[in-house]
Amino acid sequence: MSITRRHLALASLGGLGLRPQLSTAQHLNSAALSPQDLRHAQALRELGLKDSLAYALTESLVTEVGARPAGSPADARAVAWAQAQMQRLGLSQVRAEPVSMKVWQRGPLNVMLSSPVPHPLTALALGNSISTAPEGLDAEVAYYPDLAALKADHSERPKGRIVFVDQRMSRSRDGSGYGLAVMARIGGAVEAARRGAVAVVIRSIGTDRDRLAHTGAMRYDQQVAMIPALAVSVPDAELIARLHQRSLQPDGQPLRMRLNMRNVSHVEATSHNVLGEIPGTDLAQEVVMLSAHLDSWDVGQGAVDDGAGVGIVLAAAKTLLQGGQRPRRTVRVVLFANEENGFDGALAYGEAHVREVHQMLSESDFGAGQPWRLRSRVREEALPVIQTLAELLAPLGIARPDTQANQGSPGPDAAFLMRKYGWPGLELTQDGTRYFDGHHTENDTLEQVDPATLPVNVAAWATTAWVAAQSPVGWGPIAV
Amino acid sequence: MSITRRHLALASLGGLGLRPQLSTAQHLNSAALSPQDLRHAQALRELGLKDSLAYALTESLVTEVGARPAGSPADARAVAWAQAQMQRLGLSQVRAEPVSMKVWQRGPLNVMLSSPVPHPLTALALGNSISTAPEGLDAEVAYYPDLAALKADHSERPKGRIVFVDQRMSRSRDGSGYGLAVMARIGGAVEAARRGAVAVVIRSIGTDRDRLAHTGAMRYDQQVAMIPALAVSVPDAELIARLHQRSLQPDGQPLRMRLNMRNVSHVEATSHNVLGEIPGTDLAQEVVMLSAHLDSWDVGQGAVDDGAGVGIVLAAAKTLLQGGQRPRRTVRVVLFANEENGFDGALAYGEAHVREVHQMLSESDFGAGQPWRLRSRVREEALPVIQTLAELLAPLGIARPDTQANQGSPGPDAAFLMRKYGWPGLELTQDGTRYFDGHHTENDTLEQVDPATLPVNVAAWATTAWVAAQSPVGWGPIAV
Repeated sequence: MSITRRHLALASLGGLGLRPQLSTAQHLNSAALSPQDLRHAQALRELGLKDSLAYALTESLVTEVGARPAGSPADARAVAWAQAQMQRLGLSQVRAEPVSMKVWQRGPLNVMLSSPVPHPLTALALGNSISTAPEGLDAEVAYYPDLAALKADHSERPKGRIVFVDQRMSRSRDGSGYGLAVMARIGGAVEAARRGAVAVVIRSIGTDRDRLAHTGAMRYDQQVAMIPALAVSVPDAELIARLHQRSLQPDGQPLRMRLNMRNVSHVEATSHNVLGEIPGTDLAQEVVMLSAHLDSWDVGQGAVDDGAGVGIVLAAAKTLLQGGQRPRRTVRVVLFANEENGFDGALAYGEAHVREVHQMLSESDFGAGQPWRLRSRVREEALPVIQTLAELLAPLGIARPDTQANQGSPGPDAAFLMRKYGWPGLELTQDGTRYFDGHHTENDTLEQVDPATLPVNVAAWATTAWVAAQSPVGWGPIAV
Repeated sequence: MSITRRHLALASLGGLGLRPQLSTAQHLNSAALSPQDLRHAQALRELGLKDSLAYALTESLVTEVGARPAGSPADARAVAWAQAQMQRLGLSQVRAEPVSMKVWQRGPLNVMLSSPVPHPLTALALGNSISTAPEGLDAEVAYYPDLAALKADHSERPKGRIVFVDQRMSRSRDGSGYGLAVMARIGGAVEAARRGAVAVVIRSIGTDRDRLAHTGAMRYDQQVAMIPALAVSVPDAELIARLHQRSLQPDGQPLRMRLNMRNVSHVEATSHNVLGEIPGTDLAQEVVMLSAHLDSWDVGQGAVDDGAGVGIVLAAAKTLLQGGQRPRRTVRVVLFANEENGFDGALAYGEAHVREVHQMLSESDFGAGQPWRLRSRVREEALPVIQTLAELLAPLGIARPDTQANQGSPGPDAAFLMRKYGWPGLELTQDGTRYFDGHHTENDTLEQVDPATLPVNVAAWATTAWVAAQSPVGWGPIAV
């Protein structure tokens, strides 16, 4: 997951004390779904809990493909892998829809503190960062505790210096710390360059204390000079902070940093969204989307982000097939291209499918953790069905909070489409307490995926897709 | 810490159920020490528990020097740092004793799985490894689950191949898993080369699951061809194991690895053991050693290995000074050079100090964890004093097990000297449950040092040094 607005929204929601209520068919709000459909929803939920396919697929993707940055040869292998898996699982209309894009490619990076004493730094370029000049640069460091402090500085201090933004991120179940911190990564270069800085270096946006830097997308502003942008690991940021404190002493020496980095931008490439379906019956022209993104960053294995999501939604579709009843609406699995650095897949999907009625957008892109919250973004007439869904999901430990219950965000690609087309969305928030430890780092490996929590996700999504497909009312369009 | 015999010995000792008994001066075995000395030992213990210097020194060393491989410019800065700290703390006879050595230097490394699909691998050369030929090598992988399996293989399979040894290490408080696993690192190259392999790659010897490889020393045998040796991170080893399993399927494809690595061996260098003393009174010619090693591997910050040990023993000496009573024997702090890859410091110390009576050797080189076990290696006549020491340390949570209580090992450099010269040793085993997570990796940073556990170590060593210094009987020599 790379997007930020979702988290900015999440940030305003506090912790939830709701406890799920165990529910059975006879107690459910049956006004919304037929008794047969309710019973089948429960059957799918129980079937999903027995799943082992989600983990097997995640393992297969990271083992047989590995990291798969959009437009790379590995990405092409992932597209082939995804189609083969969808065929094998029995999905229909399996196809890869082309997505044209310009991709950014990481090159060599060398960065160190050169003064007061040499310290090698563990760092990663931020996605879209330009290179340094071939000879690199060596400049004094201007330290800021966070992005707000940089924005508040109207002095000449950043001019000619490397701005360091020591933005900290807090740990929370809903990942809200990310939304509060990530603008340092996305917008740090613009803020620093506006003030004359020659480069920006940030503390990694993450909750770990490992010597592994976190990458992620950053943006330039056409009105502002482009400067190199990178993230150092948290222990390196702590080291810089300690040396900065020493530099403030009477005998303190200024910090200097030496930086050389080569990246390539705007490389023409083609990737694909991979789609597969369970055809609907009387409402087959309406689409219930289960999605994840197929690409990953180039570091790590893309196991948590978003191999687990790929495994979950494919296994949820397989659960629906195994349930043996065809849905009224068409359930479509979409594996998006280039979520991480451009949303080209979401853009292309929207253009290709703009005329279709979308009953539900969703995306599993918050790792492998336990789902604990249901939020929707549907028109008011559909809320009774969502309430029924909430009762069906409660035994899984998924609650539906009263606050912002219909202000959900269905995940990065899906949210992009929701905002653009007014298609309704469904969010099952996963436990993100540890999600940002290895997010966008070399530590995004299969070791971070807990096989025990995947079946709960599969059960939740299979149930959700079924309820959306059988709903007597349309969930959209929504006002956006 | 790098040495292995200690751990091989530890491996044979099971868990301990002993609970410490709170003791007061009047209950102590006062036959061994005078009542005044006993009371002062207790006072030092309490003083040590208030320590904050150990952490401050560790922080200073890693911040102002950082990683300090023996013979490097950073190592020279560490020597200057250590002398300055000893002077500042009020130690006497502060000096740096030269240590000549030939050092190994890490160069660039590039390794990947090239078949069945490309996977970049996270790896580190093992210390002393030769380079590959400039063009590198690309060979099929011969997989072995552990070193024993490689040793048992008398077939032609390793010939011309890259041997992969997937040796696992188990987690334990006493670190015994290291002793059981580390021979794969030290001796893997020789075993593989004997069988005609072109390189050896091992699973990192560590207990973590991070995408960070563990380095550490390996050895060649003059009778056997030298081949390149490296370790991949645990997640990479798991990937290789999964692909190996797939290669055994009917349609399985063999694994191939591509490797290019440049290192430099036998570089002439000079480093220094750094010494400082608290002069004794009537037995001033006898030495009570508190030691740690000043060097570190080139990866990480050398915070846990052995910055924490440096901080602990310097703070213990400062505690003795603050106690205000001069010891009978001289307490000498020794910070050894190049423990990690050669023991040149221990060797040079022995040659320079062979004629001195050593009452006690010791070394704090197992990280920053809580000490929990007292073991000695002293002559029988000294055992009552050790028992008194045990009673003094019991309130700190340090037990003295009955089994192998006098078969202790005082730490790598100290154990080397003990074995060579028959000088007695004292061991305070620290909790090593997490020690091997970041051991010899980029994750050996200040973040892994818990400030709360250092004062217990300081208290224990100050008390121990005092008891050794005041002992009415000599602790050595011992039969070795």
